[in-house]
Amino acid sequence: MLILLMRNHKGEFMKTYTVAVLGASGAVGKAMIQALEERNFPLKRLVLLASERSVGKRILFKGKEVFIQKTDEHSFDDCDIVLGAVGNDLSKKYAPFIKKAHALFIDNSSAFRLEDDVPLVIPEINGTDILHHQGIIANPNCSTIIGCIAIYALHQLSSIQSMIVSTYQAVSGAGIKGMYEYEKQLEDLTQNKEINTDVFPYQIVSNVIPQIGEFNENGYTGEEMKIQNEGRKILHAPQLKVNCTCVRVPVLRSHSLSMTLYFEKEITVGEVREALRSAQGCRLIDEPFYPMPLDCSNQDLIYVGRIRRDLTSSKGITLWCCGDQIRKGAAVNAIQICEKYIELEV
Amino acid sequence: MLILLMRNHKGEFMKTYTVAVLGASGAVGKAMIQALEERNFPLKRLVLLASERSVGKRILFKGKEVFIQKTDEHSFDDCDIVLGAVGNDLSKKYAPFIKKAHALFIDNSSAFRLEDDVPLVIPEINGTDILHHQGIIANPNCSTIIGCIAIYALHQLSSIQSMIVSTYQAVSGAGIKGMYEYEKQLEDLTQNKEINTDVFPYQIVSNVIPQIGEFNENGYTGEEMKIQNEGRKILHAPQLKVNCTCVRVPVLRSHSLSMTLYFEKEITVGEVREALRSAQGCRLIDEPFYPMPLDCSNQDLIYVGRIRRDLTSSKGITLWCCGDQIRKGAAVNAIQICEKYIELEV
Repeated sequence: MLILLMRNHKGEFMKTYTVAVLGASGAVGKAMIQALEERNFPLKRLVLLASERSVGKRILFKGKEVFIQKTDEHSFDDCDIVLGAVGNDLSKKYAPFIKKAHALFIDNSSAFRLEDDVPLVIPEINGTDILHHQGIIANPNCSTIIGCIAIYALHQLSSIQSMIVSTYQAVSGAGIKGMYEYEKQLEDLTQNKEINTDVFPYQIVSNVIPQIGEFNENGYTGEEMKIQNEGRKILHAPQLKVNCTCVRVPVLRSHSLSMTLYFEKEITVGEVREALRSAQGCRLIDEPFYPMPLDCSNQDLIYVGRIRRDLTSSKGITLWCCGDQIRKGAAVNAIQICEKYIELEV
Repeated sequence: MLILLMRNHKGEFMKTYTVAVLGASGAVGKAMIQALEERNFPLKRLVLLASERSVGKRILFKGKEVFIQKTDEHSFDDCDIVLGAVGNDLSKKYAPFIKKAHALFIDNSSAFRLEDDVPLVIPEINGTDILHHQGIIANPNCSTIIGCIAIYALHQLSSIQSMIVSTYQAVSGAGIKGMYEYEKQLEDLTQNKEINTDVFPYQIVSNVIPQIGEFNENGYTGEEMKIQNEGRKILHAPQLKVNCTCVRVPVLRSHSLSMTLYFEKEITVGEVREALRSAQGCRLIDEPFYPMPLDCSNQDLIYVGRIRRDLTSSKGITLWCCGDQIRKGAAVNAIQICEKYIELEV
């Protein structure tokens, strides 16, 4: 890994990194580029990679144009870090070449998330898991990130044994194509035109679709199992049981979760509020207000509210949370992993 | 009560009824009129009542125009049955005059639902509770009707002890004004115009709002407590515990519910499916398909699907159901109460 020594604003020597964004023309890829700029990431060089279709397109980064290049097996040769914002197939295809280039692969796909030698990281929760990486660090599923950030401070009050979750997931979860399809359907609906579907299995405007991902044999979808499987790994809670229903709703870019949590011990609503007030990555929105996807879009905190005692069990707490699916739910978390990696490496 | 003897199509003498619709210009009122026509209700005369604003408007009923009249204390004098499709205040205002006229009041508001001498009825479940009426029969909350129809056959397999429910409620739940506001917001969003709110507390298009009704001291809204309070009365299950989160979503007229049910005994997914196949008022939609609000609008069955074992408890079953909020969730259930009343009276 080629690391140049540069001076930061205090005149201290600091490392800079050549970072590639794999999937630079997608919704998450674009948000990664934006986050690198906003967070003033110590970049040596930014490499934008995508499929042939996007080659030659330009993206503005800190006032300069950066051209998107075609991805091939040598695209990663000079890179220190590769941020993956592509699907499982492409992540699997390019992982060996990224490894060969000795670059760190921070991957947003679900291809490697549950592999033993791949840390699955939300920096606010299990940042030091990064230390065990073998070249790949996985970025969790968007709903998992939003849900885990909302509950982590509570899990520290008393161990969460199980959760019942229903999600209200934005169309951005299906990528930029999902967002375009949603906007096209909105237009067609208001103009009384026929509504076409391609990305989503059915019309999503003025509808909700209780399927995200393929069905498993147990009747749950792939997306529904992620919160349990990934949540166990992130929270270091191998016994955690999660019953989840994932639902696509006609919302542009923020996911919401209705969560009922069952703790080992009884905890009070007051204790929950107090814990959330200082919880990293969270913003408590208390009655008479509450989190809504519209309000928490285009920023990085997970908004948590509607906190109340579960009416079916004294050890239960019910809450509602929202977070920007593209930012903290994907792109920003990946950049935070980079930052944590740098902090730990130094 | 003035009852005329008329002959039906078989030549048998049958009773006919003078029915008033109180709130005839609203979404539920209009759907009640439509249901009276569709179900060929034995009408002697149809009286349409509304506020002064709607007086003189005409509604087509079986090919004939019926004029909307202003409601006053004498509006009910010749009526046998009054179908109430107005808010709590107007229901309470007119109830004494309906009683004075010796008419039966079938009320869709929540004003009388929990009163001891008022049956709260879903005909498929507790139709014979009608026998105890003292002049008022209450029509349950829309989400309560949809949820109870979905679970009643399962409750007969084994008593349901508790439920965790998250709702996805259509804008029609806020009446015809809510539907207009939703459609206006859709238009304004696609035309990049400023979005105004009046009926809903916030923009509902491209958003979800986790508040329906006012907040109680326990942090739950009025709407959220209805499923427990009304469900207990309808199912004759005074111990039933329901933890509900009610959420408004940008959908026109069908509500969806994500429900996790905890039974006294363990029951299998196969038993649930079998029970739902023959459950009154239900339609089982099995994988790879599932109920969606778009599909179950403008008809009267509750669609139930996504049936699977709860992953947190062996006594739990999780399912998803949808129903037309205006029809079975309100208007049609009220007409079915009328029909059951006639059947029991005869």
